[in-house]
Amino acid sequence: MSIRVTIAVDVMGSDKGPKSIISGAALSKERHPESDYIFFGDYNLINKAISEYSILKNCSEVIGTEFVVNPDDKPSSVLRKSKNTSMGEALDWLKNKKVDALVSAGNTGALMALSKFKLRTLSGISRPAIATTIPHANGEFVMLDLGANVECNTENFIQFAIMGSEFAKIILGKEKPKIGILNVGTEQEKGKLVLQEASEHLKKSYLSKQYSGFVEGDTITNGVVDVVVTDGFTGNIALKTAEGIAKLCSFYIKKMFLGNLLGKIAYLLIKKSLGLLKAKLDPRTRNGALFLGLNGIVVKSHGGADALSFASAIDIALEFSKEGVGKKIIKGLDNLKSSGDINID
Amino acid sequence: MSIRVTIAVDVMGSDKGPKSIISGAALSKERHPESDYIFFGDYNLINKAISEYSILKNCSEVIGTEFVVNPDDKPSSVLRKSKNTSMGEALDWLKNKKVDALVSAGNTGALMALSKFKLRTLSGISRPAIATTIPHANGEFVMLDLGANVECNTENFIQFAIMGSEFAKIILGKEKPKIGILNVGTEQEKGKLVLQEASEHLKKSYLSKQYSGFVEGDTITNGVVDVVVTDGFTGNIALKTAEGIAKLCSFYIKKMFLGNLLGKIAYLLIKKSLGLLKAKLDPRTRNGALFLGLNGIVVKSHGGADALSFASAIDIALEFSKEGVGKKIIKGLDNLKSSGDINID
Repeated sequence: MSIRVTIAVDVMGSDKGPKSIISGAALSKERHPESDYIFFGDYNLINKAISEYSILKNCSEVIGTEFVVNPDDKPSSVLRKSKNTSMGEALDWLKNKKVDALVSAGNTGALMALSKFKLRTLSGISRPAIATTIPHANGEFVMLDLGANVECNTENFIQFAIMGSEFAKIILGKEKPKIGILNVGTEQEKGKLVLQEASEHLKKSYLSKQYSGFVEGDTITNGVVDVVVTDGFTGNIALKTAEGIAKLCSFYIKKMFLGNLLGKIAYLLIKKSLGLLKAKLDPRTRNGALFLGLNGIVVKSHGGADALSFASAIDIALEFSKEGVGKKIIKGLDNLKSSGDINID
Repeated sequence: MSIRVTIAVDVMGSDKGPKSIISGAALSKERHPESDYIFFGDYNLINKAISEYSILKNCSEVIGTEFVVNPDDKPSSVLRKSKNTSMGEALDWLKNKKVDALVSAGNTGALMALSKFKLRTLSGISRPAIATTIPHANGEFVMLDLGANVECNTENFIQFAIMGSEFAKIILGKEKPKIGILNVGTEQEKGKLVLQEASEHLKKSYLSKQYSGFVEGDTITNGVVDVVVTDGFTGNIALKTAEGIAKLCSFYIKKMFLGNLLGKIAYLLIKKSLGLLKAKLDPRTRNGALFLGLNGIVVKSHGGADALSFASAIDIALEFSKEGVGKKIIKGLDNLKSSGDINID
C-alpha cells in the first residue's frame, strides 16, 4: 500500500507561465505515481494545459482563482488582498490540512509573508527561514536563511541553527550535524556583533558539541560543516554568486572543448562523464527551497523555473511530506524547549 | 629610459612565512626589472632569504623591525602599538613618500586601520574600501568593498561607486564603466533600506548614466556591470564563496578526467587547454586587492599567499604605481566635488 500525497500547486506568478508549471507536475507525477495535485489559478488555462498530459487526468483538481500575486507586488500589499489569489487560496487549503504541502514559483516575499500570516510559525520560532541543500566536495550542506529575513538578530540566528540542525538530521541523515555561522573570519572578534553574540550563545547551548564556530565562504564548499547559518541577505547573495560562478565554470569548460580539434575529440571521449557533471552542476535538478519554521510544508521554486526545474521543487515537497519533516522539527523544538538550556533575552 | 619603482614589502605576518614572501619578490623582479624593494621585518631572516636569490641582491634594502602584527591582533590594539612593527614602519615609509607602494600579506583589519591612521583618506572619502578585479564571462569586473567595512551607510555606498568607477576607468579601460549595487533583487523596494537610499541618490547624481541599478549574485558573473558596489561583509562572503565554488568545479573536473580510461585519454588530448583554464581560474594569479581611497597605494595579499601568489600582489602594486591610480582618483573626486551634484546628508 502506498500513501497518497496531495500537493497544492500555485500555477500563477512564475516567470515562465502556467504551462511550464503543469508540465513540471506531469514530470513529477511520472516519478511519483502516489501523488495527487490541486492546481490553483486560471481555471481555463490550467484545464487546457492539463488536457495535454494524460498522466495528470485522474489525479488533478483545479481550483479557479481570479487574481494573481505578481512578482513585483509588495508583501505588505499582498497581505491586504490575498483573497481569491492562487497563492492565497492554496495556502488556505494547506492551513486547513486539505493538502499535504504547497509549491509555488511566485513572489518569494509575498509567499513568505502570506505563509507566516496563514500558517503561523512553529511554537518557539519567531521567524521562519528559507533553507536548501547545496553540494560540496563530498556531499551536501544545508544553508539558511536564503532570503526571508534581510536583517536578523541574535535570537533569529540561534533559531536558524536549531531549525537547520533538525532539517540536516533528516535530509542529510546525520545524527549530530555540524553547524557553522557564516562570517568574514573564523576568529571570535570578526564580523558583526550580532554574529559574535549568537556564536557565544551557541557555544554555551545544548548544541555546543555540534557547533563549529564561524565558517567562511571558501570553506563551506569543502563540507567543513553540515549547516551554514546566515541572514537572508548574505545567504541569498552567497547562493546566487555560487550559481553565477558555477555557470561561469560551465561556460569556460564548454569554450575549452570547442576551442580546437583536440578539444572536440576529447569532448567526444568524455561526453558521458561531462553529461553527469553537467547534471550535477545544473541548478534545475536542485530547485526548491523549504520554508522552515512554519506549521506546514511550503516549497518555493525559482521564479524562472522551467518544467524540469519545477518538477524538482514538487519532488522536494513530496519527499518532505512523507518524511514528516514538520513534525520532526516540532519535536526537536519541544525537546529543546524542555531542556531549557538556551536562554535568549 | 625606464622609471624605477620602489615597493615596500611587509615580510612578516603572512601565514606561509617570510620565505614565500621573499621568493614572491624574486618572481616579481624577473617580470619587472625596473623594481626595487625595501623589505620590512626580521633583519637576519630576510637577509638569509634574500641571499638565496641573486636577482634580489642589487635591488633590495632591509629595514629590521622588532615586532610583528599578528593575524589575530585586533586593529584597535595594533593602532596603539604599531611602532617598530614591519607593517607600521613600511606604512611610515609610504607616508613619507620614500616608497611608491606597499604590499602586505598581514592582518587585513590591522593593515586597513593603520593605513587609514597613517595615510589618511583622500579628500571627500570618509571610508576607504578594498577593491579587486574578478573575471566574468567576457572580461573582468571591479568589486568593492571586500572587507574593510562590515557595516556601511548610504554615503559610504555612494563613495564606493565613485571610487569603483574611477578605478574601473583605469583598470578596465572603460570610459563610462557601468555601476551596480549588489542586492537580493533588482526591484527598487528590494533589500536593505540603506541600499535603496544609495540607489536613489546615484540615480540623481552625475553617475546616473553609468548607474544600472541593483544587480544580483548570479548576474555579476555575466558582466552585467563593470563595478559592483557592496558592503565589506557581503563582498567578502560573495568573493570567498566564488573562490570556494571555483575550487569545487576544479575538483569535479579533475575527478571526471581521472574517473576512467576514456577520461584519462581525453585529459592527455586537452592537457594544454586545461592548463590555460586552470591558470584562468587559479586565484593565485589574481592575488592582490587595492585599498582604495587612501593617500597612497596599499596592496593587500591573501594571508595564505605562496610565492606565485605574492608575486601577483607585487605586480599589482607596480602596475598601480606606474598608472598613477591614486592621482587619477583624486582628480576624479575633485571633478565630482566641483560638479557639486551629489548632495548627501
